Amino acid sequence: MTHPLFAKHEDTLQKALSAIETRGYWSPFSEMPSPKVYGETASADGEAAFKALLNSTFELDQPSTGETVGSEVSPFGFPLGIRYPKAAPDALIAAAAVAQRDWRAAGPQAWVGVSLEILARVNRASFEIGYSVMHTTGQAFMMAFQAGGPHAQDRALEAVVYAWDQLRRIPSEAHWEKPQGKNPPLAMQKRFTVVPRGTGLVLGCCTFPTWNGYPGLFADLATGNTVIVKPHPGAILPLALTVRIARDVLREAGFDSNVVTLLATDPNDGPLVQDLALRPEIKLIDFTGSTQNGTWLERNAHQAQVFTEKAGVNQIVIDSVDDIKAAARNIAFSLTLYSGQMCTAPQNIYVPRHGIRTSEGTLGFDAVAQAIATAVQKLVGDPARAVELLGAIQNDGVEHRIADARKLGTVLADSVALDHPAFAGARVRTPLVLQLDATQDAAQLTKEWFGPISFVIATDSTAQSLDLAGSIAAEHGALTLSVYSADDAVIEAAHEASIRGGVALSINLTGAVFVNQSAAFSDYHGTGANPAANAALADAAFVANRFRVVQSRVHVEPKAAPVAVG
Amino acid sequence: MTHPLFAKHEDTLQKALSAIETRGYWSPFSEMPSPKVYGETASADGEAAFKALLNSTFELDQPSTGETVGSEVSPFGFPLGIRYPKAAPDALIAAAAVAQRDWRAAGPQAWVGVSLEILARVNRASFEIGYSVMHTTGQAFMMAFQAGGPHAQDRALEAVVYAWDQLRRIPSEAHWEKPQGKNPPLAMQKRFTVVPRGTGLVLGCCTFPTWNGYPGLFADLATGNTVIVKPHPGAILPLALTVRIARDVLREAGFDSNVVTLLATDPNDGPLVQDLALRPEIKLIDFTGSTQNGTWLERNAHQAQVFTEKAGVNQIVIDSVDDIKAAARNIAFSLTLYSGQMCTAPQNIYVPRHGIRTSEGTLGFDAVAQAIATAVQKLVGDPARAVELLGAIQNDGVEHRIADARKLGTVLADSVALDHPAFAGARVRTPLVLQLDATQDAAQLTKEWFGPISFVIATDSTAQSLDLAGSIAAEHGALTLSVYSADDAVIEAAHEASIRGGVALSINLTGAVFVNQSAAFSDYHGTGANPAANAALADAAFVANRFRVVQSRVHVEPKAAPVAVG
Repeated sequence: MTHPLFAKHEDTLQKALSAIETRGYWSPFSEMPSPKVYGETASADGEAAFKALLNSTFELDQPSTGETVGSEVSPFGFPLGIRYPKAAPDALIAAAAVAQRDWRAAGPQAWVGVSLEILARVNRASFEIGYSVMHTTGQAFMMAFQAGGPHAQDRALEAVVYAWDQLRRIPSEAHWEKPQGKNPPLAMQKRFTVVPRGTGLVLGCCTFPTWNGYPGLFADLATGNTVIVKPHPGAILPLALTVRIARDVLREAGFDSNVVTLLATDPNDGPLVQDLALRPEIKLIDFTGSTQNGTWLERNAHQAQVFTEKAGVNQIVIDSVDDIKAAARNIAFSLTLYSGQMCTAPQNIYVPRHGIRTSEGTLGFDAVAQAIATAVQKLVGDPARAVELLGAIQNDGVEHRIADARKLGTVLADSVALDHPAFAGARVRTPLVLQLDATQDAAQLTKEWFGPISFVIATDSTAQSLDLAGSIAAEHGALTLSVYSADDAVIEAAHEASIRGGVALSINLTGAVFVNQSAAFSDYHGTGANPAANAALADAAFVANRFRVVQSRVHVEPKAAPVAVG
Repeated sequence: MTHPLFAKHEDTLQKALSAIETRGYWSPFSEMPSPKVYGETASADGEAAFKALLNSTFELDQPSTGETVGSEVSPFGFPLGIRYPKAAPDALIAAAAVAQRDWRAAGPQAWVGVSLEILARVNRASFEIGYSVMHTTGQAFMMAFQAGGPHAQDRALEAVVYAWDQLRRIPSEAHWEKPQGKNPPLAMQKRFTVVPRGTGLVLGCCTFPTWNGYPGLFADLATGNTVIVKPHPGAILPLALTVRIARDVLREAGFDSNVVTLLATDPNDGPLVQDLALRPEIKLIDFTGSTQNGTWLERNAHQAQVFTEKAGVNQIVIDSVDDIKAAARNIAFSLTLYSGQMCTAPQNIYVPRHGIRTSEGTLGFDAVAQAIATAVQKLVGDPARAVELLGAIQNDGVEHRIADARKLGTVLADSVALDHPAFAGARVRTPLVLQLDATQDAAQLTKEWFGPISFVIATDSTAQSLDLAGSIAAEHGALTLSVYSADDAVIEAAHEASIRGGVALSINLTGAVFVNQSAAFSDYHGTGANPAANAALADAAFVANRFRVVQSRVHVEPKAAPVAVG
């Protein structure tokens, strides 16, 4: 009695199981927006579908007050004008409880099969979702398509396969038979029922609504929970499209579509979210956002399993390089991509004040700092090309932060506004690179300056750089750490610092892999071992506590005969 | 380079892996205190070893203030007179941090191998530990031996094998290679390091110090953590013996023995424990005890993963029976065993006020209640035999609770003091069985009355009984639920109630399996789905967050050629 949607996607699931076991490269979703893969008209259709959503009410057949909410503005300079049905949290909780009954009873294969079917449909909508990600987050289209589409779908599938990898280990039945010597054995038949926690709450962010929102959403669904998706008020559309697809699939599969609902809100929804997060029915919370809000959830939502990704200080330690230009190019790309508005973008770049060794001799601190600044300026020198990398600044807060940061130190590369050739009102800013000193500016090193802001920091030595990297990651959080060195002993010391800091390490990146990119099925995103995140995407711990097992036992006839007494 | 202790115990580990997959009967530790298994002189040697510990200072080579603590009194009527080295929490935390370095680096096979060797040695000490459990908890010897020895060891091994089942899935290395069309593939070598959380704190209880203490202790060790074991002041000895064995094994295996330390305390150690539980170095807490203390930990020790087992209300629903005498005998045994001082012992027994069906016709409520009371009185009728089942009352609090409970309703079987033939001062009390009414006494039904106290409760119907059972378990916690019915529809309704209450269900127990017993590798103890416990013994969720994974990645030469462009 395999569920038909499980059977339909079982091959993908098997490949995904193999991928998380070997952690080599694998993805079922094409990251190239290619007509051959997605269809000849997919791009035009997706853009048209996106445009058709503008300045209208988003259709979503779920419990609503009859009012509408929504005030998204594209970082590329125009209001989206989309209104979403307003929902009362009470009504969504009540609807989830009703939907839960049949959904819970359907069992693991149905949960996983439905989740995979939703993902397949979401993949087909990658262009529409890509444009919606672009015009809510400010990512340039290619990145919005890739990170918001196939890469987010990869992370979703990863969560589903980790869930299945745990669920499949729990037998639905067992025969237990305990020998009793010369007496008949004691025999019992046991039944094990996987029971979801209840209702999950997914709290989205405004920079990666799908990439960061999908893992919790799909982990909840694949373990039989119902889910209320509460997007960031600035990036509702990508998750609204996702919820609509999920509801379609649920309905077609014979379930109450209120297994997944959308809670769209207007800005300043903090009190509403806090009330909802403490409701006894909310048993799971997945959050991406500020340390303040994430820590509040961890410390107050005791009735729920809380998974958070918060702020951190990502760091690069430069000890020695073969080719400073290649290293600087790679670093500059990471600083520039989506204007540094990535939780994985580097901020603190440590360089010994006495300079570094290269294959062409020693290079002074100033020369290293200048090489990085120059590489950034080269990348953004041609505005028409630069905007395809930079995208736009998501919100005013980031823009103000650039202005505040400029006062901190000597400017190596200044942040300037660029005109976007296609979008007159786009908020485009080039990266700001400053010079700091580890001793004089110690207090500045431990804070996240989210956005296109980075510091080249003079240290006494690589040993000090690594010590800072390890301790700042451990105490203030970090998602990435990068090291450049030609010295094996330094690489090993960097490994130790990464373990102390509980942070993933990239070594000598000079090519087409960047520290702020992580590959699903291979790279863990976050570790759960430092304050930047209390969980990793994805591992067993991300899924194993989203469900419980309830058992029964009853006597049955033994299968074995009593032991003959000799 | 398999660790020798891993190799030594690998066969046991493989069998344990198979056991948790099928959840049939399995145990590597003999529950019979048989000379054939444990040695001809094992019992006498164990008793002599226990007696040699009395009225002396317990030898333990670990950081100490030089003072001693300890004031255990046997529930069988004599002070143990054992003094333990007093330790300052600061000193134990510092020692754990030093010990952590090599222990962490040793890796999963060493952690698991050492854990299994400790368990093998603990098993050989089962008699000494059995006597120490008897004279701290008040369990009669056979139960102290079984539950405190092999059954506790089973639960420990279960935790170790669940840890290994997760650890073995994480590859230590991976080759990642992403095709780039006509360009050479991107290739990276990745290294994955399992990193323990840090230091665990195991907070023992006074009724099952080993059975409830071992899972957390061994789950921590098997995932590379250091552990501070803080026994209940009333039951230090069993865990002190265990810690001493663990330290011996660690030392012999070349590790700093401060990987495991003992924090023995005098009574009223609450403030000391609260301070310690909030220390930033304490990353894991395993607690068994009161709801008040467990909830305090869950709500305050935010720096730690907190696993708790707290109070609950265990329930029996009687709908219909074939043979009332067999059912009553089974229930009476569960009420009497260790004087009901088990977290799994039943308390609320629901019987419809209009009576029940049996194979011999309808039986009125009073007759059912009387059958249970009579069965209890029969079991304790002969004091010499009764004490081997009842054991002794662990502490005065339980004794006072019996007196308080007597006022609640009509007495069906009164609790009386019995003389113990071997121990003149033993605190022996027979079970108190009272009659209550679900409507009139509703407020009494939701509280745990820990000890030999149970209620036969008149309900309007089996439907009401099941509704009470499900809702009380969900809201007030429960570890066990039992149902008696000859009606399949009622059994299915009981399944639904057990799922609603998140509690394990036993069906029609009339033989030699009792509701308060659970079998490692087959029965989950607790579900983590109701307030009685936030975790189950054992499952993936019990271990998966006790460690994290830190990775590195570096470019390497690709293995595949670029794709030919045709």
